[in-house]
Amino acid sequence: MGLVVQKYGGSSVADAEGIKRVAKRIVEAKKNGNQVVVVVSAMGDTTDELIDLAEQVSPMPAGREFDMLLTAGERISMALLAMAIKNLGHEAQSFTGSQAGVITDSVHNKARIIDVTPGRIKTSIDEGNIAIVAGFQGVSQDKKDITTLGRGGSDTTAVALAAALDADVCEIYTDVDGVFTADPRVVKKARKIDWISFEDMLELASSGSKVLLHRCVEYARRYNIPIHVRSSFSGLQGTWVSNEPKQGDQKVEQAIISGVAHDTSEAKVTVVGVPDKPGEAASIFRAIANAEINIDMVVQNVSAASTGLTDISFTLPKTEGRKAIDALEKARSVIGFDSLRYDDQIGKISLVGAGMKTNPGVTASFFEALSDAGVNIELISTSEIRISVVTRKDDVPEAVRAVHTAFGLDSDSDEAVVYGGTGR
Amino acid sequence: MGLVVQKYGGSSVADAEGIKRVAKRIVEAKKNGNQVVVVVSAMGDTTDELIDLAEQVSPMPAGREFDMLLTAGERISMALLAMAIKNLGHEAQSFTGSQAGVITDSVHNKARIIDVTPGRIKTSIDEGNIAIVAGFQGVSQDKKDITTLGRGGSDTTAVALAAALDADVCEIYTDVDGVFTADPRVVKKARKIDWISFEDMLELASSGSKVLLHRCVEYARRYNIPIHVRSSFSGLQGTWVSNEPKQGDQKVEQAIISGVAHDTSEAKVTVVGVPDKPGEAASIFRAIANAEINIDMVVQNVSAASTGLTDISFTLPKTEGRKAIDALEKARSVIGFDSLRYDDQIGKISLVGAGMKTNPGVTASFFEALSDAGVNIELISTSEIRISVVTRKDDVPEAVRAVHTAFGLDSDSDEAVVYGGTGR
Repeated sequence: MGLVVQKYGGSSVADAEGIKRVAKRIVEAKKNGNQVVVVVSAMGDTTDELIDLAEQVSPMPAGREFDMLLTAGERISMALLAMAIKNLGHEAQSFTGSQAGVITDSVHNKARIIDVTPGRIKTSIDEGNIAIVAGFQGVSQDKKDITTLGRGGSDTTAVALAAALDADVCEIYTDVDGVFTADPRVVKKARKIDWISFEDMLELASSGSKVLLHRCVEYARRYNIPIHVRSSFSGLQGTWVSNEPKQGDQKVEQAIISGVAHDTSEAKVTVVGVPDKPGEAASIFRAIANAEINIDMVVQNVSAASTGLTDISFTLPKTEGRKAIDALEKARSVIGFDSLRYDDQIGKISLVGAGMKTNPGVTASFFEALSDAGVNIELISTSEIRISVVTRKDDVPEAVRAVHTAFGLDSDSDEAVVYGGTGR
Repeated sequence: MGLVVQKYGGSSVADAEGIKRVAKRIVEAKKNGNQVVVVVSAMGDTTDELIDLAEQVSPMPAGREFDMLLTAGERISMALLAMAIKNLGHEAQSFTGSQAGVITDSVHNKARIIDVTPGRIKTSIDEGNIAIVAGFQGVSQDKKDITTLGRGGSDTTAVALAAALDADVCEIYTDVDGVFTADPRVVKKARKIDWISFEDMLELASSGSKVLLHRCVEYARRYNIPIHVRSSFSGLQGTWVSNEPKQGDQKVEQAIISGVAHDTSEAKVTVVGVPDKPGEAASIFRAIANAEINIDMVVQNVSAASTGLTDISFTLPKTEGRKAIDALEKARSVIGFDSLRYDDQIGKISLVGAGMKTNPGVTASFFEALSDAGVNIELISTSEIRISVVTRKDDVPEAVRAVHTAFGLDSDSDEAVVYGGTGR
């Protein structure tokens, strides 16, 4: 008998019909001989409606009370789901994040899980119940206040519970069939990925793929919990994310390239005319860090010999743009730059695949594909298993399609890309 | 500095405007130098909407999950209320029933409070916050499951918290101006009562007055917590319910008669042809008690000498009628009666007042008033401070008005009723 953690998002439980459909699927898993723990998000638009109410009474709702408000959403969906399951003749009990032992820090609206003590869940499933747990929420360790985990928090709840319960798999049910080689809205020929390693999935997630969030995959990798991303609307197999393909599954092998991700949510800041001497870059990024802004790519131009000045560019989420400019202007006298440039018309295209470690031609093929598509490159950043470039935002769709085709990822293509190095 | 517990019902916080209005009133109490604890119900129709959702997924929602669902309602209203107060520049924190230390038994949907441990509330108000507490809910002592207190539960939460915190007063805000000498919808000349004793209020509550529930008043009496029932829509003084009028308040003195209550929610069951021998009544009421039905009035007719048979009648909530008939039919062979009669076209009129203990003419005046109004009496029941009669349901409004007038309770009447005994 296995232990399965299933997570259903808001679109899967948008109304009473959705809840009943999901209840049937959960009961199937139970009938197949599994112990089942279900993590559920708030119904469809509930969260938006609660936010709307909050804005009617307070112009900037936030913090402790906002978390208290939002967590009402999962309370409703989980209780209804438990009722629907009981109505199918199976026993179910719902638990708040606090009751399920999801212990977090005290950062309201984006708390981090620091421990999971699922004693009540374990008891409940050992007694034969299906346990339904509220996603997205926990309780703070020090003050015992209700907290929420921020965007994508229910996925993290599911993986964290799966880890604490030593589950065999964490199934993330969503409204798409799995993880694709590119965003299907941009690349019509994008293929569903049957299996992908944690490492490649982490790079895709941090490069703009929205199916799974980085923190959720990171958690799963740390505790080695296989994730199965699949649709709650079909019975199809989705995408497995794990250390290695299941034993005996011959069809699935590590691809050289997992996929192409893109991200148009970032902006570029250029600090112009920075004296090219030790400590300058440090003072810039200390100012940014002090403002609690996470940056992504960083590039320093070659210094012009005549002036002894250089330019430093970095990318960051557009939503942080205003804050970054303010922080830099404040530190201007310390840093001593000429001017600031802000550009939010950029896009990032990333190619991800563990295979590029041993296939030296990948980088060359990537740049050739972009060049052939007439796409100009502004910044470049690489890791062992990823290459990212920044281009004009308008060039992104064409660039993604060109790269997807060049690496043989198109669904109806039988061609494998030819690398300079290996001849494969 | 005093400690005030305020309770606001669903109609007072029906929408964002209502919440903002209530927030202002709460802040006023705080500005007047009080520590303030607020108990709040779910917004307007929220509970009905949640019940509707539940019925869509399950034909008979009940028990643990139903409580989990319903408690989302107060979670929303209390978080919004705390936000609205913060928006007025005051600190507020909201607490679930569980966080507020409302410990109950495990009877879902109608749990009873068995202890209140308000440590977190005490800390919160001592730190200068206004504490907002979810009414109607608690946590079970043994299983730590979320429970609800049933009808009128928020009033009970407020009084129980006031008792545990040793509050100076428990203010129950509602959509009427206080407790009246009769239901103003039936008696246009009904007067608001300025002060009423716990005892008289208990009798009114158990006789059909709906402003305060019996269990809430009982709790307040046991811990001697004065209740102030008042409107959240006006600034008027309402009705004080306490052991004795506030010192120095000369205007307020104990009335001989507090008011007239009526109740049309009961039915009458008559067990016809019961052998008039010891143990017969016991076996009837044992059968009823075993079905967990609370009965109200009981009357046994004088036995007819010729047959040795008698009739026993009792009243009970209409909602329990079916269950009572079933229970009696099952026990028919043991009890040995001829037949059962069920009558749900009855009404009960009660006259309540501690003064009747020392005014022997009250009972006579009561019956005279009913007789003059042409109302026929079917059953009579009395306590030290109450007389109740059962009549035809259609006679109730006229009977209430007649009694109200006869005892000088009409608002524009200067006449005091003349009792046979005292000549007053």
